[in-house]
Amino acid sequence: MIGDRWTLMILRDAFYGIRRFGDFKRRLGITQAVLSARLTKLVDDELLAKHPLSEDAAREEYKLTPRGRELFPIVLAVMQWGDKSIHGDGGPPVELYNALSGALLDPIDVRAGGLPTNVRDISFRPGSGARAETIAEFERMSALVDS
Amino acid sequence: MIGDRWTLMILRDAFYGIRRFGDFKRRLGITQAVLSARLTKLVDDELLAKHPLSEDAAREEYKLTPRGRELFPIVLAVMQWGDKSIHGDGGPPVELYNALSGALLDPIDVRAGGLPTNVRDISFRPGSGARAETIAEFERMSALVDS
Repeated sequence: MIGDRWTLMILRDAFYGIRRFGDFKRRLGITQAVLSARLTKLVDDELLAKHPLSEDAAREEYKLTPRGRELFPIVLAVMQWGDKSIHGDGGPPVELYNALSGALLDPIDVRAGGLPTNVRDISFRPGSGARAETIAEFERMSALVDS
Repeated sequence: MIGDRWTLMILRDAFYGIRRFGDFKRRLGITQAVLSARLTKLVDDELLAKHPLSEDAAREEYKLTPRGRELFPIVLAVMQWGDKSIHGDGGPPVELYNALSGALLDPIDVRAGGLPTNVRDISFRPGSGARAETIAEFERMSALVDS
């Protein structure tokens, strides 16, 4: 649903507060057809909602739905990774902060039972929603990983 | 760099412990050509490293590099979002836990200055690494958002 670079950039811009077709288009340097297809898909998936402002289609607005806002940790994780791995020493091109307190957003912390967890110590197992094929796959995988 | 659904799925499988070309291929149901292109790109980007096991190319292994392991918060954010928004009531198909403590991974928490932060209260501004064009863009955007 979000496995597309344009979709992720559109969502990031939606979090920045961009709403209009023309503004997404100008900022992203994306063709009309691609932007239109991605926005339609995001509306179909109920991640953005379309709010017609007037009779003028160019002035329609696209806003994040509550379900769309739940994507924020993904967008944040991508931005923080980019800041660390791509932008490096020059500092981040964009800073995110809590507008009420003024505090910068903290780096995402991977925790288990409230305690910081090293990625190397994380394991995976079928959960309560696993289908039989997922369970079989994990059994086969754990045989692979152990071998 | 990761804006591709296959790339994200390959990385997820790499975190699960999958290493061999044939195992990625079987699990993902992806063509040889696409998988090969994605793995080569991941190796070029230094997110995976190729470890030849033997003279047999089919047995070459692809392992996450330290830089690749830094992608974990992104993969975790996508999995947690999927668990909540797609899989819903049946529970997660896969559970992640700290193998040392046995505790399940906590949901990613968006915090600023150590305090939980509502996505609606987050604002954006140019950071120390912003280029002149980013600053100009934000000025134009804040005019758009306020209007």
